Amino acid sequence: MKLLGGIEAGGTKFVCGIGYEDGKIIDRTSFPTTTPKETMTQVFQYFEGKSIEAIGIGSFGPIDPIASSSGYGFITTTPKPHWGQYNIVGAIQERLALPIAFDTDVNGAALAEYKWGAAKGLDSCLYITIGTGIGAGAVVGGEIVHGLSHPEMGHIYVRRFSDDTFKGCCPYHGDCLEGMASGPAIGARWRKSAVELGKDHPAWAMEAHYLAHALMNYVLILAPHKIIMGGGVMKQGQLFPLIRNKLHELLNGYIAHPLLNNEIHNYVVPPNLGDNAGLAGAIALASNCCDD
Amino acid sequence: MKLLGGIEAGGTKFVCGIGYEDGKIIDRTSFPTTTPKETMTQVFQYFEGKSIEAIGIGSFGPIDPIASSSGYGFITTTPKPHWGQYNIVGAIQERLALPIAFDTDVNGAALAEYKWGAAKGLDSCLYITIGTGIGAGAVVGGEIVHGLSHPEMGHIYVRRFSDDTFKGCCPYHGDCLEGMASGPAIGARWRKSAVELGKDHPAWAMEAHYLAHALMNYVLILAPHKIIMGGGVMKQGQLFPLIRNKLHELLNGYIAHPLLNNEIHNYVVPPNLGDNAGLAGAIALASNCCDD
Repeated sequence: MKLLGGIEAGGTKFVCGIGYEDGKIIDRTSFPTTTPKETMTQVFQYFEGKSIEAIGIGSFGPIDPIASSSGYGFITTTPKPHWGQYNIVGAIQERLALPIAFDTDVNGAALAEYKWGAAKGLDSCLYITIGTGIGAGAVVGGEIVHGLSHPEMGHIYVRRFSDDTFKGCCPYHGDCLEGMASGPAIGARWRKSAVELGKDHPAWAMEAHYLAHALMNYVLILAPHKIIMGGGVMKQGQLFPLIRNKLHELLNGYIAHPLLNNEIHNYVVPPNLGDNAGLAGAIALASNCCDD
Repeated sequence: MKLLGGIEAGGTKFVCGIGYEDGKIIDRTSFPTTTPKETMTQVFQYFEGKSIEAIGIGSFGPIDPIASSSGYGFITTTPKPHWGQYNIVGAIQERLALPIAFDTDVNGAALAEYKWGAAKGLDSCLYITIGTGIGAGAVVGGEIVHGLSHPEMGHIYVRRFSDDTFKGCCPYHGDCLEGMASGPAIGARWRKSAVELGKDHPAWAMEAHYLAHALMNYVLILAPHKIIMGGGVMKQGQLFPLIRNKLHELLNGYIAHPLLNNEIHNYVVPPNLGDNAGLAGAIALASNCCDD
């Protein structure tokens, strides 16, 4: 079986690892994200001498993952110091003569859950992470959904929860989904972090309202076969039943599919790949790149 | 070149026609939608003796277009008398031994615009009609987007225009997009039909608000290469610049693509196939079914 490399390029840390094309990870390491020069040197040192056949990068964004674009391979307008307009694919190509797959971290995670995780055997899925930011990716028929650019589903507008006066914390859109329901939004609204709030705090009904509105839009636009919710905020497991109930209420029986009605507990689920999800995503991207 | 048949199955009338696989229509007829027995008899009479190689049906909905489903080929839960749970594909198969393609009218229209119209040569597009209802379909890489079911993008929730007290007229969701921005919603809110309102009536800024919010969600989730807006309400051409400006304002430069910034007039456009769009959509569906 082919051995593949993966780079989970996060804003806080990089995780590098190798695994087989069935998703089995056999080695991993991680180091903080500092400057491209310092961080990428550690990436090259890790992969040196490893007999891999392709490398996948699941990156923080925004990025340009469109192969036909003149900006392909770049991390683009990130506010993270040193990394704006950085050609990460070019840097790797220069050092490692391998096929490279490049996409967002959430598109990688969606692909890994589709191939090996919670959506294995299904036609499509959507993966959403709720943490410092909110990002999502979708896979339909084995293909990651791309258009003009990668999706930015975390920034859709959602209806305000009645009585919620928090103005939102997205620097671009104020009270979009990320502005109202990310970890920092919870922290700013309640002046406590998600983990400090009790499990029966009213914060969770409000959080479920925002996330269920987003899921409703994803269902009406893409109708994925499964929705997988990960990220730090979703470690609050009490959110799952609240979100499922609210989504069911919002859809109001409009789509007559059992998964959106009495089987909704099998529709909105946690990730299956646990703490390896990010790295598995990068390896999934690499495995797709070998299929081409 | 292959000759193909198309059926635009609307709730008010059926349009049947034949055309070539390059989209050229050479004959058409239409008749009112009454009962399945009466209407389908006219369909069979029209196609009898026509030497077509496949037939496409672009239908009013909701329908079941998923080939692997036990309910494939049915018009499902429509409130239209006589047509609920009607197996339209089965009825046609019984009389005409031909390959049949079956999808929603808007998915057909999206495919026709992708193949022959405003999105010709692009990788993806989204077609939305705003009329008695609001429906939309998307094509990505030549494939119509389906998941659990066909999209129901007209029913997403959108943020209320400030001071709009209209409660919405969607029987399922109240103030979803269709409930707030369809032709009947405009009529109920202003007590005048769209054509009776002057071109500088405040109705149009409000309408543009709702439609631009919907487009923003479609862009952030699917990022189609072009958005084509048709249907009776969009005959009010003054809406186009209002919608483009509002969408540009909402996105606030977040996606750095020229089509979403200074080239937005080339991004949100009217259909290119005019009054033949529905029939062309059905023929486009038929042509895809020959490719398989």
